[in-house]
Amino acid sequence: MTTTRTGPAGAGRQLRADARKNIAAIIDAATDCLARDPDASISEIAKAAGVGRVTLYGHFDSRATLVAAVVDRAMAEAESVLGAVDLDGDPVDALRRLVAATWEVSARYGALVVAAERTLADDEMVAAHAGLRDRAVGFLERGRAAGHFRDDLPVQWQVTLLHTVTHAAATAVHNGELTAEDAPLAITTAVLGATTPPGAPVPDA
Amino acid sequence: MTTTRTGPAGAGRQLRADARKNIAAIIDAATDCLARDPDASISEIAKAAGVGRVTLYGHFDSRATLVAAVVDRAMAEAESVLGAVDLDGDPVDALRRLVAATWEVSARYGALVVAAERTLADDEMVAAHAGLRDRAVGFLERGRAAGHFRDDLPVQWQVTLLHTVTHAAATAVHNGELTAEDAPLAITTAVLGATTPPGAPVPDA
Repeated sequence: MTTTRTGPAGAGRQLRADARKNIAAIIDAATDCLARDPDASISEIAKAAGVGRVTLYGHFDSRATLVAAVVDRAMAEAESVLGAVDLDGDPVDALRRLVAATWEVSARYGALVVAAERTLADDEMVAAHAGLRDRAVGFLERGRAAGHFRDDLPVQWQVTLLHTVTHAAATAVHNGELTAEDAPLAITTAVLGATTPPGAPVPDA
Repeated sequence: MTTTRTGPAGAGRQLRADARKNIAAIIDAATDCLARDPDASISEIAKAAGVGRVTLYGHFDSRATLVAAVVDRAMAEAESVLGAVDLDGDPVDALRRLVAATWEVSARYGALVVAAERTLADDEMVAAHAGLRDRAVGFLERGRAAGHFRDDLPVQWQVTLLHTVTHAAATAVHNGELTAEDAPLAITTAVLGATTPPGAPVPDA
């Protein structure tokens, strides 16, 4: 047996490799399950991951801890996707690209947005989105300083609106109130309304 | 003693009167406490109502049940206030009045909006707002039919946006991200962005 041949250190390494493999399988399965059903249970997730409930609870002490881990990984991917969005050039075009990419990355995770809002505390949601917020604030502040975006409302509110409306659109698609195709337009119209300077016509969404 | 003189029927009546008085005091106290602190505990609410915890739990079996009762009463008041908003005449002016009144009635309840979103299930929130939604849908549909509002997005989404952005503004005011004075402008810009027909300039908020 491998564990006998390689001794206790090797056994420990094997155990850690198994644990890592299980954790990865659980997070993958949870991401898939929650994308389809925001109320997916621990039993369903364990089954989809091919592990037992005891193994799952050995790694994640509660459903909320698991949802938080799934959200953390999703946000890391979101930061990577949104970090690649070109925010230079015409600020209104850049805002359209930011909204479209924000929607695209949200849509990829389906109902996970709904699961996160039901499960995580407000401060956990804020912490998970901190990286995305900082980048959006920097972009909007440049556009405000140059007179492209209205600056008579707090920039933090404008970013909150982008976040809130994107999540509301994801929930509306989950509920069948909005189609996924209409979602980018639905988000863009609201965000452009809240950023276009007073008196200027809102650009076409 | 009154109860002896009036017999069992009178005693029952007295008991019911006391219960009604306690329930009213508890709902009043919970409304005040939750408006200030969305995490206000049952103990704090019982103390503010001048009743014991046992009495409170005799009427409301959980904090969630109490929050639901407070929300139901608040929504009844909201329906009465918003039902008085004149939605005739120029639809854009009427939309401004509807947004302003929606904000005003939300602001009156302070952090209760935050407490409700943390405590109630999604379907409870939807049910609580059904009356308000129906009226807003009717108003927006008339404006869409007359070409005043964009009709390339679902009317249900436009109402969801009004609801979501109003609640987000209430939360932002609670968090200190937005001032109460700026909130009507913050909501109106987003809602006008989502309702103004494509190509038309968004009216001044």
